[in-house]
Amino acid sequence: MYITKIEVTDKRFNLGNGAGSDAVNDSTQYAYAICELHTDSSVKGIGLAFTLGAGNDLVCKAIQYLSETLQGREIEELMSDFGSVYRSILDSPTYRWLGPHKGVMQLALAAIVNACFDLWAKSRQVPLWKLLLDLSPKELVATLDLNYLEDVLTIEEAENILRNNLTGRTLRNRVLQTGYKAYDTSVGWFNYSDEKIKENVARAIDRGFTAMKLKVGSNDPLRDIRRAKLVRAEAGDRTTIMLDANQKWNLPQAISICKELSTINPYWIEEPTHPDDVLAHQTLAKEIAPLKIAAGEHIPNKIIFKNFLEAGAMDFCQVDCVRVGGVSEFLTISLLAKKFNVPVVPHVGDMGQIHQHLVLFNHVAIGHENLFLEHIPHLAKYFKNPANISGGYYAVPAEAGNSSDLVTS
Amino acid sequence: MYITKIEVTDKRFNLGNGAGSDAVNDSTQYAYAICELHTDSSVKGIGLAFTLGAGNDLVCKAIQYLSETLQGREIEELMSDFGSVYRSILDSPTYRWLGPHKGVMQLALAAIVNACFDLWAKSRQVPLWKLLLDLSPKELVATLDLNYLEDVLTIEEAENILRNNLTGRTLRNRVLQTGYKAYDTSVGWFNYSDEKIKENVARAIDRGFTAMKLKVGSNDPLRDIRRAKLVRAEAGDRTTIMLDANQKWNLPQAISICKELSTINPYWIEEPTHPDDVLAHQTLAKEIAPLKIAAGEHIPNKIIFKNFLEAGAMDFCQVDCVRVGGVSEFLTISLLAKKFNVPVVPHVGDMGQIHQHLVLFNHVAIGHENLFLEHIPHLAKYFKNPANISGGYYAVPAEAGNSSDLVTS
Repeated sequence: MYITKIEVTDKRFNLGNGAGSDAVNDSTQYAYAICELHTDSSVKGIGLAFTLGAGNDLVCKAIQYLSETLQGREIEELMSDFGSVYRSILDSPTYRWLGPHKGVMQLALAAIVNACFDLWAKSRQVPLWKLLLDLSPKELVATLDLNYLEDVLTIEEAENILRNNLTGRTLRNRVLQTGYKAYDTSVGWFNYSDEKIKENVARAIDRGFTAMKLKVGSNDPLRDIRRAKLVRAEAGDRTTIMLDANQKWNLPQAISICKELSTINPYWIEEPTHPDDVLAHQTLAKEIAPLKIAAGEHIPNKIIFKNFLEAGAMDFCQVDCVRVGGVSEFLTISLLAKKFNVPVVPHVGDMGQIHQHLVLFNHVAIGHENLFLEHIPHLAKYFKNPANISGGYYAVPAEAGNSSDLVTS
Repeated sequence: MYITKIEVTDKRFNLGNGAGSDAVNDSTQYAYAICELHTDSSVKGIGLAFTLGAGNDLVCKAIQYLSETLQGREIEELMSDFGSVYRSILDSPTYRWLGPHKGVMQLALAAIVNACFDLWAKSRQVPLWKLLLDLSPKELVATLDLNYLEDVLTIEEAENILRNNLTGRTLRNRVLQTGYKAYDTSVGWFNYSDEKIKENVARAIDRGFTAMKLKVGSNDPLRDIRRAKLVRAEAGDRTTIMLDANQKWNLPQAISICKELSTINPYWIEEPTHPDDVLAHQTLAKEIAPLKIAAGEHIPNKIIFKNFLEAGAMDFCQVDCVRVGGVSEFLTISLLAKKFNVPVVPHVGDMGQIHQHLVLFNHVAIGHENLFLEHIPHLAKYFKNPANISGGYYAVPAEAGNSSDLVTS
């Protein structure tokens, strides 16, 4: 199956009613920069990068530039040594200057890489999770680029993590029957009223969710504390509640407010400060323990994840395959996190469509904890095969590919 | 003086003959994304961001998007609280997603901010260095955004650094007579032959340079060592020689090769590994001491600089005002570096045009060491007032503004 044409689409979706709002980002729009790989058959590979609309066209243009070398490639041959392909795009001797490995160019890379994996899975007529699970450790690691990680994760070590986890697979395969637990992000967006939050909490519990998230980071910390107490009171003591500050605080603020918020017993505090600030997260982690830190939504590459993990600056790794360099870099970072015994709980810029595959792989093949995956429903109607959440669980996807196909309108 | 129109230009320059080549970047082109602020007078503010050509159009488009709010603003009013203006662009609740504070969007910010400072200096009919030196500590700090730095540098501390250095100014003002020393980067580009390097070293010494740079990072470390020894032999023991690996090595490679290269007594090793890898630089600094590390050419913002400085991961701070958010963020990072007693020796994506002003300010007003500034001559003919290097010194620029005006062709 040969790639005959590369098509790029700028697709934007209006949200409305305060959905998507947080302390820092004004998400009245969600958007995808879409890389579509046409082939000499009817099969097409679809890859997404996620933005908030503004500047999505820049990511689209960057996809065009970076994907040129894929033209004419045969998909099995391409994926047999995808780590090298990935690195050749990543380290383009001219485009690299615009990063390296961050911002608009890295988002574009995500879309391209995700399209390649989607096409590969579709060409084999299997869901992405099955494609990945059926690869040998050697084949899997050949799709990764471990450059600059040699001080903590060599190719041999990466293969060994997968090899050592082959034995426990039978037990962990149970997740392929049960599905993967979901948590509800959309209970407490930043601009939601108290009334709306109360309703959402009740509805989430009705629908079988046992974990949910509230946006914090208000200019007035008392608002955060009031709302957090409200959610705890409504949800009860046995519900898992996560708090998300979306990078709003500087370090002194974060230390002080997190100590106050600890009283509602949150499961984690997410993005407490600037996502580039490894040492601030490290200091904060020590100051607010046992409260744990989740981060990764805005961490652009494996190098910075390595720093966070080495520094003990994140307790939950929220790598997002539509922020880092796609499925390939997601898997690299999952192996890194495993080495440091840090659970991977992805942020889902893809609304969980691709990540529902990846968390299955992470649990079965890497031996990551079977924890839960973020659920954001706002774009469900635009996907051909929207993630199917029932009783608080993601059903195991059956369609071939990575579930990124959009409804054509 | 009001901003009446914002014009953006994509300007590319062919180099040729191996100039600009290094171990990672293939610089057959240099390019500027140019932000031009037209006014109700004949004065125009010019701001540059530097790239290697490819994708320069993305930076141009981003300049258009991010500069919209400057339309109609009066320059004195704009600059009187420029820290807030800067932050409002930086933290746009929609465009911020594409960074934050890195990559294409940050390069665009650099061009916009530099144009504002250029217009401000031109409107007062003074060179940028004089504009900055004439501001009070309070006025200067009002042009900065110290958000996320509160754990190491508050507004009060920043003002105090400037206030405490008011007393020594008379002595340091001597630099305004002597000019600022230059070092020659163009002696040993990566693709230059041994013969060409020898000629260049001899010519550099003839021209009064006492410090020069060689590109390393070859696939075969023996090539690096041979060339380094060649430069040392040609230049003699009293010449300052810097080595620049342009991020080529992973940590284990860097440790091993730097120890070998130490034998030629280099002044620093520049960009030994990935620019996001704070902890690798920290480890390397300990391993190869007393050999010192220079970094910053690819560090996109103040947060990551803060991490490098806190971690003891850089001995020389090579912040570049056409990489970080322009003159404003350059000054913020210079104050940070002062706090950690690390000298600022800028990388000059602007070919030294703007930085020749900024190093004068850094020395006179912040009390930074009067060290030397990189000199790259390859674009001199395209500037209306090219930096004037004589006897190995940058002459103090006399023209109003930041010296970024290009020859119109």
